[in-house]
Amino acid sequence: MNIREESLKKHYEWNGKIEVVSRVPVENRQDLSLAYTPGVAEPCLEIQKDVNKSYELTRRKNLVAVITDGTAVLGLGDIGPEAGMPVMEGKCVLFKEFADVDAFPLCIRSKDVDTIVNTITLLAGSFGGVNLEDISAPRCFEIERRLKETCDIPIFHDDQHGTAIVVAAALLNALKVVGKELGNVRITMSGAGAAGISIAKHLINMGADPKKLLMCDIHGILCDGDENLNPAQAAMAKITNGGKMRGTLADALKGADIFVGVSAPNIVTKEMIASMAKDSIVFPMANPTPEIMPDLAKEAGARIVGTGRSDFPNQINNLLAFPGIFRGALDCRASCINEEMKVASSHALASLIPEDELNEENIIVSALNKSVAPVVAKAVIEAAKETGVARI
Amino acid sequence: MNIREESLKKHYEWNGKIEVVSRVPVENRQDLSLAYTPGVAEPCLEIQKDVNKSYELTRRKNLVAVITDGTAVLGLGDIGPEAGMPVMEGKCVLFKEFADVDAFPLCIRSKDVDTIVNTITLLAGSFGGVNLEDISAPRCFEIERRLKETCDIPIFHDDQHGTAIVVAAALLNALKVVGKELGNVRITMSGAGAAGISIAKHLINMGADPKKLLMCDIHGILCDGDENLNPAQAAMAKITNGGKMRGTLADALKGADIFVGVSAPNIVTKEMIASMAKDSIVFPMANPTPEIMPDLAKEAGARIVGTGRSDFPNQINNLLAFPGIFRGALDCRASCINEEMKVASSHALASLIPEDELNEENIIVSALNKSVAPVVAKAVIEAAKETGVARI
Repeated sequence: MNIREESLKKHYEWNGKIEVVSRVPVENRQDLSLAYTPGVAEPCLEIQKDVNKSYELTRRKNLVAVITDGTAVLGLGDIGPEAGMPVMEGKCVLFKEFADVDAFPLCIRSKDVDTIVNTITLLAGSFGGVNLEDISAPRCFEIERRLKETCDIPIFHDDQHGTAIVVAAALLNALKVVGKELGNVRITMSGAGAAGISIAKHLINMGADPKKLLMCDIHGILCDGDENLNPAQAAMAKITNGGKMRGTLADALKGADIFVGVSAPNIVTKEMIASMAKDSIVFPMANPTPEIMPDLAKEAGARIVGTGRSDFPNQINNLLAFPGIFRGALDCRASCINEEMKVASSHALASLIPEDELNEENIIVSALNKSVAPVVAKAVIEAAKETGVARI
Repeated sequence: MNIREESLKKHYEWNGKIEVVSRVPVENRQDLSLAYTPGVAEPCLEIQKDVNKSYELTRRKNLVAVITDGTAVLGLGDIGPEAGMPVMEGKCVLFKEFADVDAFPLCIRSKDVDTIVNTITLLAGSFGGVNLEDISAPRCFEIERRLKETCDIPIFHDDQHGTAIVVAAALLNALKVVGKELGNVRITMSGAGAAGISIAKHLINMGADPKKLLMCDIHGILCDGDENLNPAQAAMAKITNGGKMRGTLADALKGADIFVGVSAPNIVTKEMIASMAKDSIVFPMANPTPEIMPDLAKEAGARIVGTGRSDFPNQINNLLAFPGIFRGALDCRASCINEEMKVASSHALASLIPEDELNEENIIVSALNKSVAPVVAKAVIEAAKETGVARI
């Protein structure tokens, strides 16, 4: 039985991967009077007087909604809201297991941006944060941007930022191994959807030179003035590709120091890798089949290779980011998750491997390491406090 | 320390009364591959093919949303969505403890009927049912009615139907004790809000003669043609009060067999009770202070008295109804909770006291009796199957 068939069988057995349980006893009249009526009137009135008390008197302090519209689920595409829910439940499991965050899955039966924004905005008082998931690009950009304006709790589209934060952490360590500086390297990316654009933005926030960054999609290198770009891509084309270069991904890779792929399987050849600069760093992260298989990339001359897969070294997995980020954001009651908090997360993640243990096959910690989230959370809290978005 | 102060202290200690936990292990790569990527793609695709599989492959089969807008919380009124959440969490605790239903609290930051209906409709794919709670009348009637049209899952406004179902159960047993028939008795009610109207409708569905039913609000007896009634009250005025009687609650109580109060404290006098028919049944259920205290009602000649309070005999508590009703509705995947299911619930609840144990102080089982919900659930499932709304 392959893993997908086995997973289906398990899902039939599990009857759901999450469960809502009670934290209080209800065995006698006294219990009932304290947890429910008549006693419960008093915490209600406390919150009426000061709505911030909802973080102390209800579960809101530890509660994140994991919300999808089902339009970009895994690599499966627009499969519908209910069909996205096994992924959302899985995400909630990871939140709980890796950072003791209570996460609850919701799907919205609409693809309309206004409707999705309004729905989530109306629910924001029920949660301490919102993790958007598997919402298709470019809609996801506007949905996140507008929710950040309308909601007083952190909004985080993990498909964009989670991967970006872990890529940056792995890249920081890889650059140390090869002795290059982020501000000087040439970076070529494949994929200009939600993940690709977010990775590019985050690398620039981390210190990469946007002029030396080339983003490619299926039509080739993104260049300012191209007419087939969506607004998010056009904005990236304006700040990247300083030389206004045009051409294919193969052209873009010639002489590049770094390749980051979040696109399609097997689109990068050995020849393309061989054309890169010396000591090249190659992150082909298309899932489950990378842009080029790690062994081929190595044979072609790549010095460091990282993928999304757990069966090769250097697994770049967003599981390293989102649990700790929300743990930190909830613990300092951050009003948002800003760029500084994301940058701090990447540095914290990178720091988890001591410099003397860094090598070509060890640039990022294991995704299953449960000591990661507290370290990320600490960095997130410090950055939130420094930037004035922590509320406690 | 009184119960409300103690409850507040406990709420600060509890850090929330519910918690979302994982039902699956995530200790190694294999676990991760089964519960999350890449394995999870398969259950997603199964649901895409047949959306009903979401009940088998996610927690939806056991999941109820407890939703409020915070407009009629306990007796506190419109205290705001977040301030209603301690009650919603308490309700979720009771769902879990009494019927193993996973219930999750949501508050909606809007008082607009259209907005509330749309928001819940968009979320219906995430849940197996919706329990509406503490939404003010008459808005609650329209919200529930429209949601029943737009959603393919059971919608149940507990403030209306929960109390009604338990009142009817207690009344069935009380009538046995005094030897009267529901179809023949004169019933006078005080309170024409959500609970009052729903109780009246349910008693009629149970077999009460609407012409012999008088509903009173603060202005007196509801009578067809009154101009100060809202649409829901006007509809009730049309079918009740067959004699087109006008007057006060005191007038309405003269010669009545039954009094049901869901209105205000201490508005019924001993003289009013004394004016009722022989062997009168008196349910003054205003909370926490009844329309008349039980001892006074007894002194005035009432034969059977039931209240909402746990410190007197015959506690009429909706905790006896909602856990079992949703347990049943979820287990047969009912598309709705119809009148027949509510009627069956009342009969099942009444049946829990053997006829030879019935007496003036024992007409309804204890609210804390955890063997009640399965009995109610069984009756609900049978009624759902008989009426063709069970989907499995």
